[in-house]
This record gives sequence, structure tokens and C-alpha cells, in this order.
Amino acid sequence: MSHYLNYAIQLAEMVEGQTGINPPVGAVVVNRGRVVGLGAHLRQGDKHAEVQALDMAGAEAQGGTIYISLEPCTHYGSTPPCVNKIIDFGIAKVVYAIKDTTLSSRGDQILKDHGIEVEFRYQEAAMKLYEDFFFAKRNAMPEVTVKVSCSLDGKQATDVGQSQWITNKAVKQDVFQLRHTHDAVITGNGTVQADDPSYTTRIEDGKHPVRVLLSKSGDINFDLSMFQDATAPIWIYTENPSLSANQEHIDINYLEECTIEHILSDLYSKGIGRVLVEAGPQVTSQFLHSTLTKELILYYAPIIIGGSGQHQFYQTDEVLELSQVPNFEIVRTDMLEQNIKVQLRKK
Amino acid sequence: MSHYLNYAIQLAEMVEGQTGINPPVGAVVVNRGRVVGLGAHLRQGDKHAEVQALDMAGAEAQGGTIYISLEPCTHYGSTPPCVNKIIDFGIAKVVYAIKDTTLSSRGDQILKDHGIEVEFRYQEAAMKLYEDFFFAKRNAMPEVTVKVSCSLDGKQATDVGQSQWITNKAVKQDVFQLRHTHDAVITGNGTVQADDPSYTTRIEDGKHPVRVLLSKSGDINFDLSMFQDATAPIWIYTENPSLSANQEHIDINYLEECTIEHILSDLYSKGIGRVLVEAGPQVTSQFLHSTLTKELILYYAPIIIGGSGQHQFYQTDEVLELSQVPNFEIVRTDMLEQNIKVQLRKK
Repeated sequence: MSHYLNYAIQLAEMVEGQTGINPPVGAVVVNRGRVVGLGAHLRQGDKHAEVQALDMAGAEAQGGTIYISLEPCTHYGSTPPCVNKIIDFGIAKVVYAIKDTTLSSRGDQILKDHGIEVEFRYQEAAMKLYEDFFFAKRNAMPEVTVKVSCSLDGKQATDVGQSQWITNKAVKQDVFQLRHTHDAVITGNGTVQADDPSYTTRIEDGKHPVRVLLSKSGDINFDLSMFQDATAPIWIYTENPSLSANQEHIDINYLEECTIEHILSDLYSKGIGRVLVEAGPQVTSQFLHSTLTKELILYYAPIIIGGSGQHQFYQTDEVLELSQVPNFEIVRTDMLEQNIKVQLRKK
Repeated sequence: MSHYLNYAIQLAEMVEGQTGINPPVGAVVVNRGRVVGLGAHLRQGDKHAEVQALDMAGAEAQGGTIYISLEPCTHYGSTPPCVNKIIDFGIAKVVYAIKDTTLSSRGDQILKDHGIEVEFRYQEAAMKLYEDFFFAKRNAMPEVTVKVSCSLDGKQATDVGQSQWITNKAVKQDVFQLRHTHDAVITGNGTVQADDPSYTTRIEDGKHPVRVLLSKSGDINFDLSMFQDATAPIWIYTENPSLSANQEHIDINYLEECTIEHILSDLYSKGIGRVLVEAGPQVTSQFLHSTLTKELILYYAPIIIGGSGQHQFYQTDEVLELSQVPNFEIVRTDMLEQNIKVQLRKK
């Protein structure tokens, strides 16, 4: 147990969702029993957490210990390697919580060669921050969270598409928070045409996600209010080469095949590190079926809808063997007023 | 609810106990939905939290919001006023959790005169950090925590002074953490002569408190190993004007009257903001009786000692009326392995 390492992880959590395709990292420099520097990686391209913390510490870093939520980097990316800075500032010991499995790093050895003690001290809380990041980085695909609001019997709407049951305020706030911590929201054109949602973040100092719209046909009604709202960019993916839009905040991305893999890969290349799927049954089912999806968040309203289940949230063309259906681990459940929130991770 | 204001409070908690007679403060600068600066007040005389956070944010502070655990200062102390820096960096809005009741501050008005929106948003979690600080500052006396380890029947030792029951490892770790977050430990000469304790902090990167020893008579055996250990200073308070010590880490403070008030006042003037009393019944009882003590931490070992109670932890010369005995609020209780920890606040 080290409270300093926990502080580093807390700092990382403070910037989760704002570092694009970079990991959220926190660092604390300690010397003679005092915190002398605090840092976090604030944005892709900005200083790394270690650098922020060392800059705050200045000469007080000399002989101190740096606690970092993630192994320090050894490569020249958009900034110089952190190990160099750690060596230059005279740090005596490095403690980090998670090894960066996406790098074939010689960091420990480089630090040890400079007489610096290095300790890898695994922390479960930090792993939660990074396991999806590692998976995403190896695949060069964003981390994917699927969010579904449904009835107790698993339906997003009645057979005729009615879906305006009362979502309570607590769920809405929770969804705003989810959007805030994701770089982009993905939805399908069907949902947009039916509901005209805004996909913005109405919380104090919230960050709006990029709104990603999937429409193979490109049959889009641009008069909807979502398209008039320029608070966040809209990126449309289509297989229709002649689709165009003449508003500055709307970008058209033509792909020969609009598969999930092609779209996610393109999003990652544009700096999108985390996407939230908020869509109807068709797009939702595709993502739930994909091995790229790692996290599912369900909000159950306390109603049962019945009917034939036209809008049940998970539908497949083939009948799946029970041994092949997606399995999840329940991470936690909460009551949000009179709705139930269930956080799950795909096994 | 604001997670940014919570982050500011978390940052303040990270530096609790290392800011001497200054308060622990955290600050977060946010702009366009992103954390762009993080800061904490690291040490008396160092930059304030707001300044650290604004320096990290740089040009990105322009038009942003700063969240602070405590109202920003308007006075020239060891550093220039924070409100000036907030104005200079073009901050649009200030949100703070606690008003500094020790200052007759015009901060809100100064900020508003510069077109900055100001919001005071009370947070219970932050008040926990500051209520004793305010009390201490108004009295120019340190915050006082009394710590007692005792049997279930309230005794620190048997009638003949035997006190070496088994304190478990979890309690020891907890006490080290307490010492780490206090500037000084106060004890009496009787305890030192009997037990020869070290009063150091054996946790990773822990901070040792100054060891304050009360001895009116000055009848001290300097051969004890506590006095040979120079890891932290020892300050002796005595009414004996001829007492002297020839070791560099030992300071003798002569006072005509060694009352609790005189000693605490002198400690505060030396920069001691938080003291932990770890003493025998005599000194402990004096502090428990004093209105300057606000916090009591009890560790109960699962034994009953009996006897006549020579070493019960609270003893008074007079019989107190029940309506006059000290009353406490229970803040929390925890099991530390097979010991019970009870945190209390004096009502």
C-alpha cells in the first residue's frame, strides 16, 4: 500500500477521457516525506505527467522518488522520453503501477544503468484505466463502450418505435458524464432520423464528443436540428460517394465498405481514442457482436414493453449457440433513482 | 455536484499535513471541458495552489474556470495575492468550496470588479480539511489531535505501569500515517523515561514529526536512545532555566510557566500547524481537558486490564459534573485487524 502511488492514479483518473489516443497518466514526486510535484498528461501532444510533476518539483526532485501510474516512456514521440527527464532531474527511485505492454521498452534498464532504483508495483485500480487502452493501441482502434437504455425486457422501443418513456434526471446526468469522457459518440442514421438527438454534454464545463453518424446510403435529412447545432463536429461515414454537406462542422467520410473495423480504424487515425456507441438495435447489435467492444453500460427503466421485440437491443441474423453468445462480467450495479445501471465487461 | 471541485479537494488532501501553519489547498483550471492545469500548495512559503495550476495551464487559462478548495487570497504574504494572478491569466470564472473565515477578504468583489464570475459552492468534504485550521489560525495555536492506545476499560497500562501488550501491525501503520500528517508529536518526560519511544514514521517516504518533550523539572536522562536518534529534531519545553543539551538536534525551550497554552502558542510561532499528542495519562488528560483539542483518536486493544486504574487515560483532580464532561461526536470507527479505531471530534 502506498498512498503516493494512489495519488498518481487519482491524478490519472482526473484526466481520463481527455487524452485522445494517449493514456491518462498521473505522477507525484516525493522528497523527504513531502509531495514536491504533481502532474498529469493533459492532452495528446502535451507534456507527459512525469514532466509536469518534475517541472513543478524543480530542484526539489534531486534525490527524490517519482510515483507514476504507468511505466515511463523511453521513446521520442511528440515529446522527448520521460526517462531522460527523470535522469536529468536526479530522481533516486521510480515506482510505477502498470507496465506499458504496447512498448518493447528498456526503460527499467536505462534507469538502473543510471543508478536509479526501479520498482514495478502492480495496482488493480490503475489496470482498470489501461487495459482497454492497451487493447486499443495494439489494434490501432479506439476503446469502445456500448451504452443501451432499455426496458426490463431488453427493448429500446415498442414495435412501432415509441421510445419516449421517462428517463430520469440521474440517468441523463450519468450519460452526460459518459459523453464527457469519450472522444466521440457513434450512432446510426435511423436513430437520428427518428429521434433527432443532440448527443451533447450538458454538465458544467463538460466536453462535447464528436458526433459520428453511420449512413451507408447517405439518405440524410440535413434539416434536422442536430445538423444545425455546431457545438461539436459531425463526422458522417457513408458508402455513397456523392454525399456532400455545406456546413463547416459536418465532414463527410466516404469508405468503400462501411464496416465497423474500417470506421474505427479511420477514427483512431484521426485521434479518437474512446468511442461511445449510442444507437438503435441495428448499430448496437453490430458493436455488441464485435470483439472490439469491451464495455457495455445498461440503463434499465422499470417497465416491460412486450410486443414482438422489433426493437430489442441485441438481434442477430443467425441463431447463436449458447456456447457462442457474448458473455460478460458484471463490474457493478447502481440504482440511479428508479433506474438500474449495470456496468459490464465483455469476457 | 462538480467533479472538478472534488478534484481540487482531492489535491488538497494529497498535501494535508505538509503545509505547516498554512492550509492544504488544491486547484484545477478547466477550459472547454478539459483539465488544463492542476496545482496544490506544497509547503509554507511556496506557491499557492492557484498559482501552480495557472502556471501549468499557461495561455490555456484564458477564458477558463478555476476550481479551488478554498477562497483565493487577496493579501501579500510570502507570495503575491492569488486574485491578481487569476485576473492576469484571464480566468472567466472562479468556483471555490470554502470561505476563509480568518480573512476579512474582499476577494469576491475584486474579482467581480474585473468581470470575473465568482461562485461560492460549499462542500462538506472541504470543510473537514479546514475547520480545525480556521480555529487554530484564529487562536494562533496549532491544530491538536490526541491519540490514545488503551484497553477496552480505558487504561494505557496496568497499575504497575506494564503496557507492552501486543499492538498489531495495522495499528502501528496507522499511527505512522498519523505522525506523517502532523508537524510535531507531543509527549511527556515520564513516558519517554519509561518507554524510550522513537516517535518516527516508518512508512515509505514518510515525514518524521518534530518530537516535542514536556519536562517542567528538566530531570532528563539524555542517554536514552530517543535522544541519540537525530532523524528528527527534539524540542524540550521546561521550567528549569539551567537545562541544556549539547546535541545539535536537541533544542531547549525555557518557559516561566509550561502551560499547554504557552507551549502551543510557541510551537505555532515556530511554524508548527498540527500537533499529535502521544503521551501518558497526565499529559493526555491535560490536552483532553483543553478547549484547544478538537480531535481524539482511540485505538482499543481487545483486553480488559482492571486494577485500580492508575493509568486510565483520562484523569481529573476534581470530580466533574456529568453536564461538564467532554462530549464527542463519533466520526467513524474501523477494525484494524483485532483492534478498534475510533475517530472522534470534540463537541
